[in-house]
Amino acid sequence: MGERDQVKLLGVWYSPYAIRPKIALRLKSVYYDYFEEDLFGSKSELLLKSNPIHKKVPVLIHNNKPVSESLNIVEYIDETWNSSGPSILPSHPHNRALARFWSAYVDNKWFPALRAAATTKSEDGKKISMEEVEEGLLHLEEAFIALSQGKPFFGGETIGFMDICLGSFLVVLKAREQLKGEKLLNESNIPSLCRWAKEFLSDETVKNVVPDIDKVAEFLGELEAKAESASSRS
Amino acid sequence: MGERDQVKLLGVWYSPYAIRPKIALRLKSVYYDYFEEDLFGSKSELLLKSNPIHKKVPVLIHNNKPVSESLNIVEYIDETWNSSGPSILPSHPHNRALARFWSAYVDNKWFPALRAAATTKSEDGKKISMEEVEEGLLHLEEAFIALSQGKPFFGGETIGFMDICLGSFLVVLKAREQLKGEKLLNESNIPSLCRWAKEFLSDETVKNVVPDIDKVAEFLGELEAKAESASSRS
Repeated sequence: MGERDQVKLLGVWYSPYAIRPKIALRLKSVYYDYFEEDLFGSKSELLLKSNPIHKKVPVLIHNNKPVSESLNIVEYIDETWNSSGPSILPSHPHNRALARFWSAYVDNKWFPALRAAATTKSEDGKKISMEEVEEGLLHLEEAFIALSQGKPFFGGETIGFMDICLGSFLVVLKAREQLKGEKLLNESNIPSLCRWAKEFLSDETVKNVVPDIDKVAEFLGELEAKAESASSRS
Repeated sequence: MGERDQVKLLGVWYSPYAIRPKIALRLKSVYYDYFEEDLFGSKSELLLKSNPIHKKVPVLIHNNKPVSESLNIVEYIDETWNSSGPSILPSHPHNRALARFWSAYVDNKWFPALRAAATTKSEDGKKISMEEVEEGLLHLEEAFIALSQGKPFFGGETIGFMDICLGSFLVVLKAREQLKGEKLLNESNIPSLCRWAKEFLSDETVKNVVPDIDKVAEFLGELEAKAESASSRS
């Protein structure tokens, strides 16, 4: 890619999804301009024009061409800057298929269960969702053992696709732990995943882009308080 | 890939998702053994062992290694038999990102709206979902014009990733048209997509793997009758 590449990233600071392209861009040493969106106020013209279908962050704009959906952006970054930095997707097709399978599991099954647990009003509903989340972590523990093959990351020696996907949610888990004392990263149940989480969060690339956990906890607490006061008024 | 490759596909004849790897395997001239599952009876040991997380078809088993999730399988086939037949994903990263974006839109937004319209009991709910489906088709019409660049397929001169993704649902649309007179492929609203649908369904590769529309309509009719009799008993 030439020196004149113009790379813009639209995100919000607390979004796990927006962390993903930030990690990928840093792994590939790509310089970019970051634009913080205000999803509670009004979305920028650039966001509405770049992602007219979903109107969501993150969006990567590379030489005026937008790419949306966080994991789609990560694959795009890996393919576009393929000769710079480590490969994000594994090189063998079967390992690539496993990385894509498990990242779809995280985004379409596991995290939606965590979100349902956080937002449902029903105590029974919350319990069922939390059981799904914990069962999911057991599956992910097994997946980690299978994919990492004794190495520190899902991607082996370096951070890869599935590390970025699941790792982006670690901030939410840590913030919820702080806010509610909810200890999902439990060493007796999922020891390998706990070791991985420590390794991931202390990685230099990750530390540079991940938001402060105290700030995220405070933000989630405010969001919850707002939701409760809205529901008590209705 | 060597001559000794052993390729198995687990599917059900009426599933749009199972059509996808069949088209991809045929485009790449890969010989495979097909195993029909009985999702209403008991699932095979092979399916339960190969896709223990979702227990769903399709599953591709290549030299004893399973790959699940239909579009993940299609990418795997494209990457594994990369020197045989046409490329399924476009070659340029931005076009690949567009193909992945729109296929995620079809699977996560558009088709779920169609399924909601088909299964909801509420007349208002059905109306809202059908409006989403029709709006989605307008977006897909625009996407087709942008991606195909005046050529017959989303993938250009040959069938590509997004053709396989959306094309696999054409049988459902045609069967519903026959069953309910629901004409979603309306030439005055989405002329390009209607031309594409004709082109796709008359392609030799596709014709060889797509189930008979009369049979699918009959099957959907039976499913609906069963669901109605079950709900009238409860």
